[in-house]
Amino acid sequence: MLRDDALKGKTIIVTGGGTGLGKSISRYLLQLGANVTICSRRQHVIDETAKELMEETGRSGGSGVVLAVACDVRNTAEIENVIAQTIEKFGRIDGLLNNSAGNFISPTERLSYKAFDTIVDIVLRGTYYFTLAVGKYWIENKIPGTVLNISTTYATTGSGYVVPSAVAKGGALIMTKSLAAEWGKYGIRLNAIAPGPFPTKGAWDRLFPEPLASMMDPTSRIPLHRVGEHGELANLAAFLLSDYSGYITGESITIDGGEVLMAGEFNHLEKVTTEQWDMLEQTIRQANKASKKE
Amino acid sequence: MLRDDALKGKTIIVTGGGTGLGKSISRYLLQLGANVTICSRRQHVIDETAKELMEETGRSGGSGVVLAVACDVRNTAEIENVIAQTIEKFGRIDGLLNNSAGNFISPTERLSYKAFDTIVDIVLRGTYYFTLAVGKYWIENKIPGTVLNISTTYATTGSGYVVPSAVAKGGALIMTKSLAAEWGKYGIRLNAIAPGPFPTKGAWDRLFPEPLASMMDPTSRIPLHRVGEHGELANLAAFLLSDYSGYITGESITIDGGEVLMAGEFNHLEKVTTEQWDMLEQTIRQANKASKKE
Amino acid sequence: MLRDDALKGKTIIVTGGGTGLGKSISRYLLQLGANVTICSRRQHVIDETAKELMEETGRSGGSGVVLAVACDVRNTAEIENVIAQTIEKFGRIDGLLNNSAGNFISPTERLSYKAFDTIVDIVLRGTYYFTLAVGKYWIENKIPGTVLNISTTYATTGSGYVVPSAVAKGGALIMTKSLAAEWGKYGIRLNAIAPGPFPTKGAWDRLFPEPLASMMDPTSRIPLHRVGEHGELANLAAFLLSDYSGYITGESITIDGGEVLMAGEFNHLEKVTTEQWDMLEQTIRQANKASKKE
Amino acid sequence: MLRDDALKGKTIIVTGGGTGLGKSISRYLLQLGANVTICSRRQHVIDETAKELMEETGRSGGSGVVLAVACDVRNTAEIENVIAQTIEKFGRIDGLLNNSAGNFISPTERLSYKAFDTIVDIVLRGTYYFTLAVGKYWIENKIPGTVLNISTTYATTGSGYVVPSAVAKGGALIMTKSLAAEWGKYGIRLNAIAPGPFPTKGAWDRLFPEPLASMMDPTSRIPLHRVGEHGELANLAAFLLSDYSGYITGESITIDGGEVLMAGEFNHLEKVTTEQWDMLEQTIRQANKASKKE
Repeated sequence: MLRDDALKGKTIIVTGGGTGLGKSISRYLLQLGANVTICSRRQHVIDETAKELMEETGRSGGSGVVLAVACDVRNTAEIENVIAQTIEKFGRIDGLLNNSAGNFISPTERLSYKAFDTIVDIVLRGTYYFTLAVGKYWIENKIPGTVLNISTTYATTGSGYVVPSAVAKGGALIMTKSLAAEWGKYGIRLNAIAPGPFPTKGAWDRLFPEPLASMMDPTSRIPLHRVGEHGELANLAAFLLSDYSGYITGESITIDGGEVLMAGEFNHLEKVTTEQWDMLEQTIRQANKASKKE
Repeated sequence: MLRDDALKGKTIIVTGGGTGLGKSISRYLLQLGANVTICSRRQHVIDETAKELMEETGRSGGSGVVLAVACDVRNTAEIENVIAQTIEKFGRIDGLLNNSAGNFISPTERLSYKAFDTIVDIVLRGTYYFTLAVGKYWIENKIPGTVLNISTTYATTGSGYVVPSAVAKGGALIMTKSLAAEWGKYGIRLNAIAPGPFPTKGAWDRLFPEPLASMMDPTSRIPLHRVGEHGELANLAAFLLSDYSGYITGESITIDGGEVLMAGEFNHLEKVTTEQWDMLEQTIRQANKASKKE
Repeated sequence: MLRDDALKGKTIIVTGGGTGLGKSISRYLLQLGANVTICSRRQHVIDETAKELMEETGRSGGSGVVLAVACDVRNTAEIENVIAQTIEKFGRIDGLLNNSAGNFISPTERLSYKAFDTIVDIVLRGTYYFTLAVGKYWIENKIPGTVLNISTTYATTGSGYVVPSAVAKGGALIMTKSLAAEWGKYGIRLNAIAPGPFPTKGAWDRLFPEPLASMMDPTSRIPLHRVGEHGELANLAAFLLSDYSGYITGESITIDGGEVLMAGEFNHLEKVTTEQWDMLEQTIRQANKASKKE
Repeated sequence: MLRDDALKGKTIIVTGGGTGLGKSISRYLLQLGANVTICSRRQHVIDETAKELMEETGRSGGSGVVLAVACDVRNTAEIENVIAQTIEKFGRIDGLLNNSAGNFISPTERLSYKAFDTIVDIVLRGTYYFTLAVGKYWIENKIPGTVLNISTTYATTGSGYVVPSAVAKGGALIMTKSLAAEWGKYGIRLNAIAPGPFPTKGAWDRLFPEPLASMMDPTSRIPLHRVGEHGELANLAAFLLSDYSGYITGESITIDGGEVLMAGEFNHLEKVTTEQWDMLEQTIRQANKASKKE
């Protein structure tokens, strides 16, 4: 979508960049000319991804370079190591994509305190640790950097059955808005994306074994009647990490085919057929007529 | 819920006060000692309601007095007449409950411009006309009055199949917030209530002939698995019209048994049974174990 | 920002396209290859704009063609004429940008019913009339069109002193969400942009004579300490009208330099100086120490 | 506000119940007939409060009994001890008021990881630990309990200079909505209150030494031009903990004199004087006339 070289000269850190959406976004950032540090807990996963991405994007001329540094986002020393290595390799950091996540799909009363903590620590603590570390670096070095957080629609609506994730994503969203207000004076921007279903083969199957898979079937629940494509999300992410979005900050953009809109009280009437609407129109007209006579 | 005499000496105008929820709320306001002007388009309807309410509440000692004045809220002369008659009868006005409404349940593309206008004119225009008229009276007479608007959850979420109503309720909600900010300096408060399903026998059947009725069945869609009772809404309305809520302004309070929360992406997993959750736990544990070995 | 030809072959109607932001967006749409029908009440204004835009964009090869049709958006016959002429000239319609607006900056109690109506009719009625007309055309012709509404942050927060506009924009925003949910099944998307201050020389001076101008000074109130540039808004508008945003619907994107975030309760502490923060740190530390000893 | 005995027979746990708002709410709950367990980190503080409250409320006939149990809400064993002692003393638990809090007012870049963690652990972790523990007890014992969380308006808007608190309160708010949806089927309700400034002598002075105190001066920033009174908050809290609010769940109610509304883009025009508005009206009228002639 964006013009070639839209991110030329930028360096962006992508947490959870080894697989799934993080990998897809990293690929697109590289294509647009950015250097990308991907990090994830397991070194061998990001090494493979780095190799694969360089082979794919390296063929075209203008692409950036990828660096893979292992990191558990709950560990501040490891975060600081990612930052140090990125600066050593690329000279500076311009963007941070907080994309690491974890989730349990479960009734909440089945969770232990520890299980709840695990998700909150990865999703929320990891996000504010990394943002704090990079933010301090930007302020000290007067760099007008930009943060993009992968959020979710339930960071605003809440959701049962994924409560630790909802709590953590909810907190991270408020961090986005809070720091956008506070750090705007330094030229630092923070935004978020709230994606609907963007399935990744593998991850998706693990997350949704049957009978969940059928219940989550998006063709029936989503106004646009389809799931999202990774490229669509990558477009939006690249835009928000680029200078083209320079006047957008503190915003969370939903890209979900309208899924979250189904909250609207009467939207389930989509199931009423044309013939039924015809009939209803008759019924209502007659009722109105009768009511007026009265 | 509130103490006797909680509204003693107050005079409140209730639009659409002849039937349904407006009537139920008026009854409770009278019981709490308020004088109430009910208005509606058809004089004979509100006359009957006035008679019925006085008989019911008159028996107990502390109740207020009801006045019935016909009024089409789209007509500013009729609105000003309601105001004039209320002041003549009760001496002053303390509260306004904007409750008049209209609705079509229909695919939007089946609506004419005129049908769309009809709903917007009753729900939105009527609300701002009445609020403007009463507000000017309050400001001129230095009365710290209070407005309560009956809103709906789809004033925030939007909803298909009731789009003119959603548009109008959405506009009225923003009026509530806007004037609460602007007129706070005069001591005027404005709030809203967003009710879920509070069925009124008759109105409800007309609004939801089959097959809509079954589709709207709240026992399956609402977290608390029941519809609301008129008394529950009346409690909240009386609180917001009373001085007890004196520090609440510009707020819309949802009372819907959690219906609007169902927007949460995973809430439909309520249908998963205990046995299925047991099985899922096994599956996920094994997948995690396998993934860790890898 | 977008690649050349991003809108090649698309035809978009822009209401209020003769001046200000509408004109800036139209220019960019043309550059990206779209044909654009601009409309506005005064024929001579849009004729001049059309001429100017064709001269500017015509030089480069890939640009689209502009058509100017006078239209008062409160008049459904004139709306249908715009639609008919656009189809006659360009063969079909792919997008609608609802951008016509009007506003009074005034204490609400100084407004007449009629003044209130005027703004609501242009901003809200005009928007739903045009959307209904184009929507019916799309559904009938199975065209997956897209609507973009120019909203404002006070469509969500509300605002005093511009209450008719707030009411109307609030209603239009809920229309956006409602129809996005309902018409998603037809492939139709609706989105909105909520811009902060994007001054247009002339319009801006008329809207904000002194002392308003100084009070509205964005350098003090906005986290990014600057106003927006027309090109930044045009980028976002073009993205949302293009197929690149194909999975975004029912969304309102704020582009305001963080202005709306200033709602945050402590954000005005931006005025505390570094020296004051140093002092405060001392004070708080001592207080905590004292409190612990206790 | 509520009728005597409104909470007769209920037992409610109040975290942070030893001082400030928690103490004020506890007093009112006792007056309405509830038994209350107050907890806080320091035993001697809650012992004193317990003694004081019993002396005050014990004189009147219908009041409940208070129990003081020390508890650090970050410690699950201590939480379980509070629950066990409450059940032992009062037989069961009906309500939980999550009110414990902590806050630093500071530029975020001055905070260490550890400082950030401290606030998040008290406010967020403490809230979900306690809610999880009590929720499991309710589900196991089929008790339709109710949770009330003391939130804040910046749990929704975000706010700079209190970012750890904002993050934590943001997460806790989403927990409220998520569990309201999920646990509604058990009859469990969860709600929140978002208070504006309700100063407590002492706490307030510690939190806002000069020059913060003057900057936070609510008389200039709040539409109703005053701070809240503890009794006003206690009224709302008691309502939400009582059965009178039985159809409200997943809701957060703002009680802030309209403070959060000031986000509205034009609300700062409150500073324009009547004379200036008169002048502006003239200017605008003339500009419009000139523009029409054109």
